[in-house]
Amino acid sequence: MTKAQLIQNIKTKKTMLCVGLDVDMDKIPQHLLQTEDPIFEFNKAIIDATHPYCVAYKPNTAFYECYGSKGFASLEKTVNYIKTTYPNQFVIIDAKRGDIGNTATMYAKAYLQNMPGDAITVAPYMGEDSVKPFMQLPNKWAVVLGLTSNTGAQDFQKLPLPKFNAQGKIEVELLCEVLMRKVATWGTTENTMFVVGATQGVLIKAIRQTIPNHFLLIPGVGAQGGNLQEVIQNGSIPNEYGLLINSSRSIIYASNGADYAQAAGIEAQKLQQEMSVYI
Amino acid sequence: MTKAQLIQNIKTKKTMLCVGLDVDMDKIPQHLLQTEDPIFEFNKAIIDATHPYCVAYKPNTAFYECYGSKGFASLEKTVNYIKTTYPNQFVIIDAKRGDIGNTATMYAKAYLQNMPGDAITVAPYMGEDSVKPFMQLPNKWAVVLGLTSNTGAQDFQKLPLPKFNAQGKIEVELLCEVLMRKVATWGTTENTMFVVGATQGVLIKAIRQTIPNHFLLIPGVGAQGGNLQEVIQNGSIPNEYGLLINSSRSIIYASNGADYAQAAGIEAQKLQQEMSVYI
Repeated sequence: MTKAQLIQNIKTKKTMLCVGLDVDMDKIPQHLLQTEDPIFEFNKAIIDATHPYCVAYKPNTAFYECYGSKGFASLEKTVNYIKTTYPNQFVIIDAKRGDIGNTATMYAKAYLQNMPGDAITVAPYMGEDSVKPFMQLPNKWAVVLGLTSNTGAQDFQKLPLPKFNAQGKIEVELLCEVLMRKVATWGTTENTMFVVGATQGVLIKAIRQTIPNHFLLIPGVGAQGGNLQEVIQNGSIPNEYGLLINSSRSIIYASNGADYAQAAGIEAQKLQQEMSVYI
Repeated sequence: MTKAQLIQNIKTKKTMLCVGLDVDMDKIPQHLLQTEDPIFEFNKAIIDATHPYCVAYKPNTAFYECYGSKGFASLEKTVNYIKTTYPNQFVIIDAKRGDIGNTATMYAKAYLQNMPGDAITVAPYMGEDSVKPFMQLPNKWAVVLGLTSNTGAQDFQKLPLPKFNAQGKIEVELLCEVLMRKVATWGTTENTMFVVGATQGVLIKAIRQTIPNHFLLIPGVGAQGGNLQEVIQNGSIPNEYGLLINSSRSIIYASNGADYAQAAGIEAQKLQQEMSVYI
């Protein structure tokens, strides 16, 4: 999907919502366990109920791989279902992959070609040759980890690095800012996004100054405690919006009864209505 | 597997060799393509031919995921085959995973429980809660990226960070060293290893001073150009060896004729003989 199409979808549907499909068999309604593919059945119903209120879906691969090759097949079916039934939805495979060049190319093939994802999340620690292969397929995106929503973001992402300012004096800059500025030079705003956690509050504003024109994928609204209004005010781009705001657990586990899909639709609609004020 | 068992295996077999199972269908002997599971058939023959000369195997998940759920099943079969047939082999799932705490726990379950890997490679950028779940299962290991073998290692892993020395003066230290020292405090030498590329030459010596007691997984010998003697002299630990040295392509693609397994065995034996001098 192109950036222009994504922006148009946000504008038309008045939502920046991305629904995270992190399916845990222990948390889904128990009557689904009798079906042949409980994970896919669950996802299909959630997708059918939430699609009017979101522009993107984000399945996290961990939740599929932990059920082995059968779980991997559920992931394939889910991604294929979304892109076949609702082709305007932007699908982010949340895989956080990163490996040396020839191996990264295999991952790009796996998730952006064989599986028809629009984007994949990428771990940047291994540098340029590990990230670029995800930026080289037409209308496909690398969503690179910048500043994440978890407590561990403190450990390395916020390490201070020395930097000379315009007056020749030493200032400090966070590793995540240095990293995002560098990664931004490897691609364009048409094939690169960054993950920035909703829980990072005012830092989102600083990051928006560092990378003014890139879309940000923002997890951490909802269960993890990030504030929607603050995120939009600090992170959006005039006219282009520039944000995909993810919510997983608070939508997909809104109910674990027979009404789970309906309840997910209601939660997604609530978030859509909150977001529509800004669009 | 415990550290004592691993050291004993190195001592008994006089080898630190880890064989990387990075199977590309375009590179395997074409007669295997008629079998039901070419990847598994290839791996099985390679494993049967090389097991006397190595103490570890390392399948890289990218090469399986790019064949979808069928490829994922080949990975499961391969890992099960090794641990059932040659239980003394240490199996490292080269997955380079890293995600927030509850998601990392799912990955640990996928690769160290459901799949009987001894170890998984872990990307550390997301910090403590993303790494620790891989250190918490008995006799299982997190193999954390330190300084990798690829050209992109230059981009972030070698960023200089300021540090006060014992005399109160500012010195610089590389990000990868700061990172490895911190990660080392989250686990023990019984559940944590680090990836350090063979191509990093003299830096391996500096890293051995930073983390004197941890096993290192060393990729990059062979096709990538790292020097075996230099690696062992700079990186080994007295009496404990402390190294697993990986070679993939130069062993598994030693021939692409009907003699591919035999040729792989010969290559592995050559490396074992070179290593035996130091054990």
